[in-house]
Amino acid sequence: MPEALLDDISHRRYNPLRGSWVLVSPHRTKRPWQGQQEASSRIQLPSHDPSCYLCPGNKRAQGDVNPKYDSTFVFVNDYAAVREQQAEYEPPAQDGSLATRLLKAESTTGKCYVITFSPEHNVTLADMPASTIVPVIDTWTKIYTSHLDPHSPLVKAAKPTTMPPSGTNGSLVDPPKQQYRYMQIFENKGQAMGCSNPHPHGQIWTTTSLPEEPEVELHNLQQYRREQGGCNLLEDYAKLESEKGERTVLENSSFWAGCPWWGTWPFEIMVVAKEHKRALVDLDERNKEDLAEVIADITRRYDNLFETSFPYSMGIHQAPLTGTTEEVEASHFHMHFYPPLLRSATVRKFLVGYEMMAEPQRDITPEQAAKRLRDCGGELYRRKL
Amino acid sequence: MPEALLDDISHRRYNPLRGSWVLVSPHRTKRPWQGQQEASSRIQLPSHDPSCYLCPGNKRAQGDVNPKYDSTFVFVNDYAAVREQQAEYEPPAQDGSLATRLLKAESTTGKCYVITFSPEHNVTLADMPASTIVPVIDTWTKIYTSHLDPHSPLVKAAKPTTMPPSGTNGSLVDPPKQQYRYMQIFENKGQAMGCSNPHPHGQIWTTTSLPEEPEVELHNLQQYRREQGGCNLLEDYAKLESEKGERTVLENSSFWAGCPWWGTWPFEIMVVAKEHKRALVDLDERNKEDLAEVIADITRRYDNLFETSFPYSMGIHQAPLTGTTEEVEASHFHMHFYPPLLRSATVRKFLVGYEMMAEPQRDITPEQAAKRLRDCGGELYRRKL
Ligand SMILES: O=P(O)(O)O[C@H]1O[C@H](CO)[C@@H](O)[C@H](O)[C@H]1O
Ligand SMILES: O=P(O)(O)O[C@H]1O[C@H](CO)[C@@H](O)[C@H](O)[C@H]1O
Repeated sequence: MPEALLDDISHRRYNPLRGSWVLVSPHRTKRPWQGQQEASSRIQLPSHDPSCYLCPGNKRAQGDVNPKYDSTFVFVNDYAAVREQQAEYEPPAQDGSLATRLLKAESTTGKCYVITFSPEHNVTLADMPASTIVPVIDTWTKIYTSHLDPHSPLVKAAKPTTMPPSGTNGSLVDPPKQQYRYMQIFENKGQAMGCSNPHPHGQIWTTTSLPEEPEVELHNLQQYRREQGGCNLLEDYAKLESEKGERTVLENSSFWAGCPWWGTWPFEIMVVAKEHKRALVDLDERNKEDLAEVIADITRRYDNLFETSFPYSMGIHQAPLTGTTEEVEASHFHMHFYPPLLRSATVRKFLVGYEMMAEPQRDITPEQAAKRLRDCGGELYRRKL
Repeated sequence: MPEALLDDISHRRYNPLRGSWVLVSPHRTKRPWQGQQEASSRIQLPSHDPSCYLCPGNKRAQGDVNPKYDSTFVFVNDYAAVREQQAEYEPPAQDGSLATRLLKAESTTGKCYVITFSPEHNVTLADMPASTIVPVIDTWTKIYTSHLDPHSPLVKAAKPTTMPPSGTNGSLVDPPKQQYRYMQIFENKGQAMGCSNPHPHGQIWTTTSLPEEPEVELHNLQQYRREQGGCNLLEDYAKLESEKGERTVLENSSFWAGCPWWGTWPFEIMVVAKEHKRALVDLDERNKEDLAEVIADITRRYDNLFETSFPYSMGIHQAPLTGTTEEVEASHFHMHFYPPLLRSATVRKFLVGYEMMAEPQRDITPEQAAKRLRDCGGELYRRKL
C-alpha cells in the first residue's frame, strides 16, 4: 500500500473542502524544543466566582444581571465585533481610479451572542455528561432557527421556536433586526486560544456577509455536488473514513469523528454527519444525543491526551441563514476542532513564518494523531486522580 | 470623505493580493482583557552563548562546527521540514473510487537553510545598523540566485554567484540537487512566534511545489496584469499609498512600507518595491541599501512601540525559481511583517475561533496602526535607557 510510505516522507495533502494544501513532515517531531512553554492549567477554580460575568446571578459589564440559570444561558455580547445598527457607509463608486480599484470596503452589521454551557464556573465540556450537552445543542438550534430566512427551505425542518430567555425577569433575547446571511457558532477554550474567561461558554457571531471560510467550503461543496451527480462531498468522506478506520477517533450511528486526511493542527478533529444534514434544524433527538456524545467524548480524549485542560477552538459549519436552494442543499453539517498542542501540555505547534508566508505545515500525521486519540478514551483523567 | 467613517463602523476590507476579506471592528479595542499575558522579554543575553548552535565556533546538533563568521552564515537545517532525497511516492491512479477522489497526496522534496544575521547572540535586526543588514540581503540574493532555473528570464539580471561558505574549512554549501519551484525566505522572531533560539536568524525553505500563499498571490498578480493592460498590482498599490499617506509608516526612493489597507494583524506591515522588481536579483546596490534601511527602521519602530523586543514573522514574496515568463514578469518583490501584539508588550491578538472558522478579524484599523508606528521612530528605546 503506497499510503504507508507517507509516514516517513515529506508530502502535501489536498483539502477538497477548502481547495488548499498542507505540507506534512512526519520526521520533524524529532527536533529538540527550546522555545516557548505554555502555562500548565492546574489552577483550582471555585464552582461560583462572584467576579465572573458569566456565573448565574452576577452582574455584567454593562450592568445587566444574569438570571439564576441552571443549564445554558444566552445574551448579546457586551463587546460585539459587529452591531445591529451603525452609521450607513456608501462605498465610493468605481471610477477607474487606483483608489476605487484597490481600496475596497463594505459595511457589515450583525449580532453577537455569548452562550454559557453550564452554570458551574469550574467545569468544561469534558467534565459534562453528554446528557447535559444536549441542552447546549438545543440552544444553538433555537438561536439558529430564530435567525433563519422565513423563505429558506430549512424552515420546514425547523421546530417553531422563540429566542432563549435573556435576563433576570425571564425576558427573551430580542429577535434579530434584519435578515443576516450567516451564523458562526464557535468556542475558544483555554488561554492559549485567546479565551479570557474560564467559565464554560461559546460565542455566536451573525453577519450580513458570508465569511471567507464557509464561503470557500460552500463553493467547493456545490462544485462537488454538480460534478458528482448530486453526491455530497462530506457524506462521501464520512463513509470512506468510516470504512478505512485509520483516521477515525470515534463514531456512532449519526456522526463520524476523526483526524481528517488534510488536517493542519496536530490533533485536529472533524465531526461529520453520516447522513445528509444541512444544518442544526435537520438533527432529530437521536442525532442530538449522538452529537452530545461525540462532543463529550472528544473533549475528554483531548484532556486525557496530555492530562491537562486541552485548549482548542471549535466551530460549526452548516447552511447559511439565507441563500439559494443550491447553497442550502449543498451544505453539510460538520464541526471543526482546532487544538494547538503538539508535544505535551506545555509545548504547542506554532503556525508562524513558513505557515503564514507559504503554506500550513504539520509534523505528526493525522493517522498517528488518530491512533493516539483512540488510545486515550474512557474516564476523564481528573476523575481518576 | 466616506472613508473616515470606517474608523467607527464594522466593515470588511478586500485584499486583492489574496482575493480574501478581513472583518474590521474598530470599536472593539475597548473591551477589557483578562486573558493570557505573554512573558515580557527583559532577559539579558550574553553576546556569545557556548550552548547556542548558531554562535560562531560552536558545535551543532549533528556535530558540524560553525566557522568563526563575522556577518552572516548559512547552513542546511539539521531538522529540515523537507529533504533533498527520500523514498519515491507514486500516488495511486485515479480509479473513480472515493479514496482516489478524496485522499490526495503528492511527494515534496526540497532544501531548508538557516541563515544567521549576525555573529552576536544578543542582537536583533532592530539593534543592527542598516549597513550590517546589507550583507544579510546579499546572502539571501546569493542563495536565491544559486537556485534559479538556468532558463529563467531572471538569470540575465543575476550576478554570477557561488553558494555561501558553510563550514569551518570555508567549504561552500552544496548546490541544490534538483530544480526547485519556490524559495520562501522568512524569519520567526521571539518566543511568541515559535522561535526557539534568540540568536538573530532566519530560515529559507525551498520546495518542488509552489506553496499556497505565493500561488494565490501569483494568480492574482497575473490576473491584474492581464486585466489592467500590463500594470502591476503592487506597483500601483505602492504608488497609491505613497500619495495618500495615511497608511504609510516610512518610504525611501526604492520602497514603500506601511500598514496595508487589508492587513489582518494589528501592526502588520508590507514593504513594496516602488518600481517593478521581480525578485532579489533585480535589486541594485542602492535598492539593497534602501531595503536594509527599511528593515532596520521597521524593526526599531516595532520595538519602540511597546518598549519590548517585538515578536513577528516576516517573509519575502518574489518570483518563483522556475516558472512561465508570465509568472516571473507578474511577480513583484515585497515583504510581509506579521506581528501578534495588540495592546501592550504582553497582550497579543489571538486569531482563533471566529478567525479560524469564519474570517480574520482585526480591532484597530490599519490607519490607526500606521499613525502609531509613524510616531515611534528615531533611536531604539533600549539605547536611550
Ligand atoms: O523551524 P523552527 O524555528 O524550529 O520552528 C518554527 O518555525 C517553523 C516554520 O515556520 C514552524 O513550522 C514551527 O512550528 C516553529 O516552531
Ligand atoms: O471574544 P473574546 O473571547 O473576548 O476574544 C477571543 O475570541 C475572538 C473571536 O474568535 C477573537 O477575535 C479574539 O482575538 C479572542 O481573544
